[in-house]
Amino acid sequence: MSTAPLTIACVQTEPIFGDVDANLSALSAAVATAAGNGAQLVVAPELCTTGYVFESRDEAFELADAVGDAGPADALADLARELGVHLVAGFAERDGARLYNSALIAGPGGPLGVYRKLHLWENEALFFERGDRGMPVFATPHGRIAAMVCYDAWFPELWRLAAVQGADLICLPTNWVPIPGQADGQMPMANVLCMAAAHSNSLFVAAADRVGTERGQPFIGSSLVVAPTGWPVAGPASPTAAETVLVDVDLAEARRQRAFNTFNHLLRDRRTDIYDRTLGSGVVEGWH
Amino acid sequence: MSTAPLTIACVQTEPIFGDVDANLSALSAAVATAAGNGAQLVVAPELCTTGYVFESRDEAFELADAVGDAGPADALADLARELGVHLVAGFAERDGARLYNSALIAGPGGPLGVYRKLHLWENEALFFERGDRGMPVFATPHGRIAAMVCYDAWFPELWRLAAVQGADLICLPTNWVPIPGQADGQMPMANVLCMAAAHSNSLFVAAADRVGTERGQPFIGSSLVVAPTGWPVAGPASPTAAETVLVDVDLAEARRQRAFNTFNHLLRDRRTDIYDRTLGSGVVEGWH
Repeated sequence: MSTAPLTIACVQTEPIFGDVDANLSALSAAVATAAGNGAQLVVAPELCTTGYVFESRDEAFELADAVGDAGPADALADLARELGVHLVAGFAERDGARLYNSALIAGPGGPLGVYRKLHLWENEALFFERGDRGMPVFATPHGRIAAMVCYDAWFPELWRLAAVQGADLICLPTNWVPIPGQADGQMPMANVLCMAAAHSNSLFVAAADRVGTERGQPFIGSSLVVAPTGWPVAGPASPTAAETVLVDVDLAEARRQRAFNTFNHLLRDRRTDIYDRTLGSGVVEGWH
Repeated sequence: MSTAPLTIACVQTEPIFGDVDANLSALSAAVATAAGNGAQLVVAPELCTTGYVFESRDEAFELADAVGDAGPADALADLARELGVHLVAGFAERDGARLYNSALIAGPGGPLGVYRKLHLWENEALFFERGDRGMPVFATPHGRIAAMVCYDAWFPELWRLAAVQGADLICLPTNWVPIPGQADGQMPMANVLCMAAAHSNSLFVAAADRVGTERGQPFIGSSLVVAPTGWPVAGPASPTAAETVLVDVDLAEARRQRAFNTFNHLLRDRRTDIYDRTLGSGVVEGWH
């Protein structure tokens, strides 16, 4: 792992539903600008080439492709190659007759792999299969990175699985929607989840959200980069405008900060003897 | 489970190290006041009868006792009985030659049980054994409650284990210490962890911290009650003053809000097929 700073950018865009060419064009411009500003690793939103609100499986199928199809997925990989950056970007992945809500992980040398969203949100279950490739962690010259997509972040098990497998940075392409109960001036709960996960696993989080309203569904922006301390080091970005957050980080901090003191290390302190016990044995019937 | 509102109080105190009588006296007054204000369930800090900063195992051993010893643990249970409340309070538990950093769970009808802290922080490992009783969930007339203690909250696995076993409310006796990196005006990271855990498990959290400085170790107060939405509904309390936060909640909300929509339920959406796989198989050696 390099000990040099890594410059991370989260590119917050506003995709136009179904207009892949326009979306790729806007994304390419934003990623190129970020690279020009020094970004070495760029995260783009969930389903950033197609848009999110599919009305039918056929519609999703027509817009989906795979790495090697000379379509949008390859265009994302080409963008990483041309700009000499690592890119983690959400796309609709077609694999035979199956569709996945995926994230491409690509570097200057080509695609490293694909993460398939494990936890599908709402109508996604009508179009996509649940991810079937676990939680891959990708070894890069900058450090070990992993991807999660949107609702995955609601599952602390997955953050932990990535951390235990050595991830230093979680890249989170997302399409966050408003959650009831957020008061004016409060940080979105999705940001709070990223902070808690970064802190309790001691890893960096780079979340790239989209903005705008699509077929009646608003999205909330607020892209951010969180340090292993849990505090944001860039963002949250605007809730409404397309913009990029960019920051220098030292990924080695993720591993250093896992040891709090002589006695405590976040991953070694885990009581797997307890968590993995048979569930259901712990209910005490007191009723008084 | 009752569908009536439950009034919860978190009693934030400033224990005097080793002065059990004074600590019990101050605690009794605070709990009685809370009960007078309608509290039906009261949470008190970690090690609230003894103080926290032990200098030796002998010192901890002398101050520790067990339910049935007619000592501080029984005094806590008596307090619950006399005031007709449920009480969750931290105490130093002696079990033969062993010591545990425990929480007593007591109701108007007597003790329901004890939770033993599973994750020991720093020097605690010199005095206490790691908890050996898993994560019990206590069925009460108000709903199902569980206890965790301080550093336990850094382990998302434990919140999840409690939720999966049916807990509606986590009572968290704690002695939070300052964490580097918190800027002025920012909520303590410990509060952020409670919010994220409440939201991603859809349960209530009632955290009672202490204040003051003991043998050079400061504590940060900021006790709070968090709703299953993740937003605080009472507190955070003062970082420095002894005070009580009190709020009416409906514990049934914890279960209702686990279903987000027709497709999504926070506990049923878990991908245990993925989390429980053999670890280490997910690292992709890309290096480009």
